[in-house]
Amino acid sequence: MKKVKIALLGLGTVGGGTYDILTKNRDIIMERTGVDYEITHIFEKYAEQLEKHGADLSLQTLDIDSIISQDSGVDIIVEALGGMDFPVQVMTRALKNGISVVTPNKAAVAANYDTLKKAADEGHAYLKFEAAVGGGIPILTPIQEQLSCNHFTDIMGILNGTTNYILTKMLKQGQSYEDALAGAKKNGFAEPDPTADVEGIDCANKLCLLMVLAMGRYVNPQQIPTKGITDVTMEDIQAAYNRGCVIKLIAHATLNEDGFNYYVKPEEIPLDHPLASVSNEFNAIYLDGDAVGELMFYGKGAGALPTGSAIVGDILAIMKALQ
Amino acid sequence: MKKVKIALLGLGTVGGGTYDILTKNRDIIMERTGVDYEITHIFEKYAEQLEKHGADLSLQTLDIDSIISQDSGVDIIVEALGGMDFPVQVMTRALKNGISVVTPNKAAVAANYDTLKKAADEGHAYLKFEAAVGGGIPILTPIQEQLSCNHFTDIMGILNGTTNYILTKMLKQGQSYEDALAGAKKNGFAEPDPTADVEGIDCANKLCLLMVLAMGRYVNPQQIPTKGITDVTMEDIQAAYNRGCVIKLIAHATLNEDGFNYYVKPEEIPLDHPLASVSNEFNAIYLDGDAVGELMFYGKGAGALPTGSAIVGDILAIMKALQ
Repeated sequence: MKKVKIALLGLGTVGGGTYDILTKNRDIIMERTGVDYEITHIFEKYAEQLEKHGADLSLQTLDIDSIISQDSGVDIIVEALGGMDFPVQVMTRALKNGISVVTPNKAAVAANYDTLKKAADEGHAYLKFEAAVGGGIPILTPIQEQLSCNHFTDIMGILNGTTNYILTKMLKQGQSYEDALAGAKKNGFAEPDPTADVEGIDCANKLCLLMVLAMGRYVNPQQIPTKGITDVTMEDIQAAYNRGCVIKLIAHATLNEDGFNYYVKPEEIPLDHPLASVSNEFNAIYLDGDAVGELMFYGKGAGALPTGSAIVGDILAIMKALQ
Repeated sequence: MKKVKIALLGLGTVGGGTYDILTKNRDIIMERTGVDYEITHIFEKYAEQLEKHGADLSLQTLDIDSIISQDSGVDIIVEALGGMDFPVQVMTRALKNGISVVTPNKAAVAANYDTLKKAADEGHAYLKFEAAVGGGIPILTPIQEQLSCNHFTDIMGILNGTTNYILTKMLKQGQSYEDALAGAKKNGFAEPDPTADVEGIDCANKLCLLMVLAMGRYVNPQQIPTKGITDVTMEDIQAAYNRGCVIKLIAHATLNEDGFNYYVKPEEIPLDHPLASVSNEFNAIYLDGDAVGELMFYGKGAGALPTGSAIVGDILAIMKALQ
């Protein structure tokens, strides 16, 4: 059995988590999948990042061609660079050259879905992005596999940990929007520039991916009506609560006799709905399928190890398919 | 591409739901998997059952050899007969003869796990039983695939819809145990003889399957300390609620520095725990993995179509593997 060769592009939070799982949990990965693997390249500017994770410095490279050219020998790249233009270029070239791609980069995949799918088809390579929605929660793969006999009529997601943390603190501790945002930054949930989170853009990217996989309809995330949480006031939250509801930033898509509808916006969720009790930085995806009925998947939507868990899950699926 | 041949054994609630999904949702199944299939045999005593689902009466047979002998041409059987001795015999023979098996029969698989696994290995066939735990909720496959890089330290499940319905009605509507059980029977959640449900036996079978797949440890269900809900009084429920808790019938396994521990019993769950809001006939499985952290999967633990969804998911996975 061939040893699968993996290149990590970026050894920041997510790349580092992926590296740690691949090295520390090697025992159960080998035992459960029977597939052997090695990390052959780490595309990363800062040697400190490799040192931090105990990675062999000889793996460090900034020569992208040595990784994604047709004769590189690499089977799978993990694109954890972030950003848009360079990663999309790299993923497209790799896929066309027959190298499979795993990425948590929701913005890049959502905006370039067709291009990337075509490149994957052209190169007979796999493109997987389970970590792009719901972090560690297995959702995109179950939709495409175990649940693929369902027509999905309803998708509702709490898909952004930062905004859910802020709304939870405003409701439960009476914090102002500004204090809650500061707390989210302090706890590492919010980016230094939280615009994509609080304006709902991150949710729109994730909803785009859920819709195309669960409902078979691609909508460019820029075409999804999107409203964030910056206008939500303490009075709104209190008034909703008095009506037996909590306000959550909801990514919502429905496909039924009324047609295909979708948006991202703050919405009142009745307290007895399964999404109502999803608090703090947790994410959850609620689905309704014509066979399975109501389902909800709940877990950590971000963080080094949860996101790394989903990336490694994708790597393992590709490794098995490559055997 | 070869047409996969499927035999349904039993066309009761679960077999009927499976038949309906395979026929009514054929469009998306074909589109998403690219695999073609046909139902070649229905092992069922009552012709009315076939008529009820619009199945071709020429498929009806009670000749088990024509289905599970080596030269039957059948690729996959769905064992939805229920019971223990006959189904185990049939599944074992089929697997040894290279015919893959999908079953929701938790009791049969839990008690005979080694025998069935060995038969599958011997015949190079697949044995899948996603529907055996949590009905339609995808849980066993995600544990073995997308989450397989995790060491699981904690599993807590609300795995039985009947008992969860009874406890919910006792708490929320002040019904007596007897009235709530009668309501569960009336609504079709409880069996005419509810012993296996209310005594926790059904939960022990399901916990056995979760433990062997998530933690790699097989424990015969009869060796799992098991207590049902028959002794839970209204006073217990009220006292727990006054302490900020709800009583749920919990199947619990932990594997950590304190060793490997497991049981089924009524347990107090704090109201802010994700399992606390799982009400009525719904099921949920809460897991903690060293990479992914806390996860919860929620949905319908029983019923024709939810259970059928999980069975069809297993059939599709086997069909793809057989190509």
